[in-house]
Amino acid sequence: MAARKKTKQKTTRKKTSQGRSTRTSQGRSTRTSQGRSTRKTSGLGEDLAKRNERMAGVTVDMICDTANTVYQDIQKKNKPDLYFPVRSLKNVSYSQKKGYFEIGKQKKTRTLTVNTVKSFAQTLRMMGLSKELVESNDFATKRDAYYQSKNWDEARFDDQTESDAVMDDIEALFSVRHISREQLRFIPDEHGGAVAGRLVVLDPDRETGEIERIDCTRFGSGAYSIPSSVEQLSFETDAKFILAIETGGIFQRLQSHKFWQTHDCILVSMAGVPTRATRRFIRKLSDEGNLKVYAFVDCDPYGISNIYRTLKVGSGNAAHLSQFFCVPQASFLGVTPQDIIDYDLPTHPLQDVDIKRAKDALKNDPFFRAHKRWQKAIEQLLKMGVRAEQQALAKWGLNYVIEEYLPTKLEQTAKFLP
Amino acid sequence: MAARKKTKQKTTRKKTSQGRSTRTSQGRSTRTSQGRSTRKTSGLGEDLAKRNERMAGVTVDMICDTANTVYQDIQKKNKPDLYFPVRSLKNVSYSQKKGYFEIGKQKKTRTLTVNTVKSFAQTLRMMGLSKELVESNDFATKRDAYYQSKNWDEARFDDQTESDAVMDDIEALFSVRHISREQLRFIPDEHGGAVAGRLVVLDPDRETGEIERIDCTRFGSGAYSIPSSVEQLSFETDAKFILAIETGGIFQRLQSHKFWQTHDCILVSMAGVPTRATRRFIRKLSDEGNLKVYAFVDCDPYGISNIYRTLKVGSGNAAHLSQFFCVPQASFLGVTPQDIIDYDLPTHPLQDVDIKRAKDALKNDPFFRAHKRWQKAIEQLLKMGVRAEQQALAKWGLNYVIEEYLPTKLEQTAKFLP
Repeated sequence: MAARKKTKQKTTRKKTSQGRSTRTSQGRSTRTSQGRSTRKTSGLGEDLAKRNERMAGVTVDMICDTANTVYQDIQKKNKPDLYFPVRSLKNVSYSQKKGYFEIGKQKKTRTLTVNTVKSFAQTLRMMGLSKELVESNDFATKRDAYYQSKNWDEARFDDQTESDAVMDDIEALFSVRHISREQLRFIPDEHGGAVAGRLVVLDPDRETGEIERIDCTRFGSGAYSIPSSVEQLSFETDAKFILAIETGGIFQRLQSHKFWQTHDCILVSMAGVPTRATRRFIRKLSDEGNLKVYAFVDCDPYGISNIYRTLKVGSGNAAHLSQFFCVPQASFLGVTPQDIIDYDLPTHPLQDVDIKRAKDALKNDPFFRAHKRWQKAIEQLLKMGVRAEQQALAKWGLNYVIEEYLPTKLEQTAKFLP
Repeated sequence: MAARKKTKQKTTRKKTSQGRSTRTSQGRSTRTSQGRSTRKTSGLGEDLAKRNERMAGVTVDMICDTANTVYQDIQKKNKPDLYFPVRSLKNVSYSQKKGYFEIGKQKKTRTLTVNTVKSFAQTLRMMGLSKELVESNDFATKRDAYYQSKNWDEARFDDQTESDAVMDDIEALFSVRHISREQLRFIPDEHGGAVAGRLVVLDPDRETGEIERIDCTRFGSGAYSIPSSVEQLSFETDAKFILAIETGGIFQRLQSHKFWQTHDCILVSMAGVPTRATRRFIRKLSDEGNLKVYAFVDCDPYGISNIYRTLKVGSGNAAHLSQFFCVPQASFLGVTPQDIIDYDLPTHPLQDVDIKRAKDALKNDPFFRAHKRWQKAIEQLLKMGVRAEQQALAKWGLNYVIEEYLPTKLEQTAKFLP
């Protein structure tokens, strides 16, 4: 949202029937009535359509630009090259200022030779497919792209691992220019997580451009399922924060009891390590709405170093994605090792794999190595030798998490682990 | 829905702005405006609330009844017994008339003795928790129930596998009385699939009872995420069928291109073997709306004998659930072995595990043994020695599935495999 929490001066605010106002990415207010949100698509639609059109234009330009360089080289009778950033942990740095894993400057070169002619051609055809997809406002999964190639004659892929590798290369190539794979219209095969709470999602129809307004307060015990690609979305919200939840069970409890209503927030179910679409959705929503993100996961090395770390700073072997997918605004609400003591939670002993994961995080992970408080917390967990699930709070009553734990925690967000 | 496709006489029909009418489970019509559906909660709310209240009453009565039998035995100084149906393949039959796997009459008895006192007490406490949950209109996951027990003193569970086993027993016990685990308010930890299309879901607020009307045509490129428990839901729809889809990729394509609009249907993403909530949702929707269900999955033994067979008739080792979860109305749209030939689809060779699964289905599975056409199809697949994914249709263009394959198929639903 252009209109951020602390810069209210230019936004018109109108009360909704629940006494709240919502602001749009375009700095406009629209009224959300109790019955159903009034649809003011005209002005809004134009802005969002314009933004999406501009993004599509930039993407097509980049593709053409890359293809042109190759074409020029051939015209000049030079061997054409393509440069891809090296995708490995060795070519990664953790920028504490930016808040996420960044890919380094190491590049690998693919030159058109007799030996590389097939994969070179395949790379160009894949870029051509991407251009078509952007121009027709369509999309393809990795698998779709593989099967599409069956009509590319000699450039067809024999195996999906080959086409996946080419797509990963193209993704890395364009990531250097700040274009994501989703902007190239290659989308994941899996769905995103579930969302409920104080949020209206704006989603333009792919043919008419008409904006669908999706009010995430209105799904009963169900929820909004995040689409595979979220690039075209915009948001209206008056929420104070996003609560990113590990398990479907806790999400369902908070949703059914309308926790988002009493605590002015947006609930997102990650269902384990969040998918690309879920991470991108949280990041985009958090960026546009200037919203804090609080992670609520199990207290174990997997919850801490896989789920939370991936959400916050990205993952080591896909650092070229971090700029799009990580959520540097995130902090760790719980369950913390100290919570196990403070709330006298039932525990399970740490397994060997847990211990290995925790020690590995302490020794090798640039994120945990940069944060003393995290080192202390992980060392405490190792010393205690136990782990606890977020649902362990049910020992004190099924709704203890809603009535006691979360409200107490949310009064001291400054104390959250970084 | 009480108002079925072919009995229109008593239903008032009103046109929506899209020229369609919707009918409710209560035989009433409400108007779905283009802006947002008008909320006519009063009358409808009472009916749905009454139904849910009646169901809750029946459940509590059953629990009390079971507990009373135990209590009477003790009063008479007899050893009390509980009778659980035996949960194994040997105690299963396939009723072609009913259309699903049924559990047999074999029972195991648990008598209160010195040795069984703990698990007997745990079973009764678990039933007591269920009663509390129904009365407070709340729910618990398996994990919640385990942690709750930590305050049951000597009856506490030491391990979640113990509490899961007791819950499975209680589920089987009450299934004989046609009460599902969800009605006992024990819900799965995982979410359901995604839904889009010509459907309005009616979901009563758990505190106020006010009905939320969720219009599944209005999710943009996103979707409605099925809640963990769907017992309290009701539906309005004018769709002609439900399309149950294996992969998120195909679901996203059909949703983004609004396939449900041109073909008057409801799309459900199963994402592999459908979860309990997804199966129950499809079954309930299909029952109430008298809707056919067409399965669209990969052409391989997993798609056929795991995903489709489980959806249609249930699974062997959980036959006590079939009455609630299977969808006997389902038939198999594709991808069929014959489609691989007719559409010249790219294939992969069958793996050993595929061949084993297929042979096992032919030899041991009561469902496939009852259907000659299925036997022929599976034998054809084995002879061809290959499998094909639903996305293989992308060979002919990304939207070939929308423009050609599905429309052609849907003109000959009578030919679908049973």
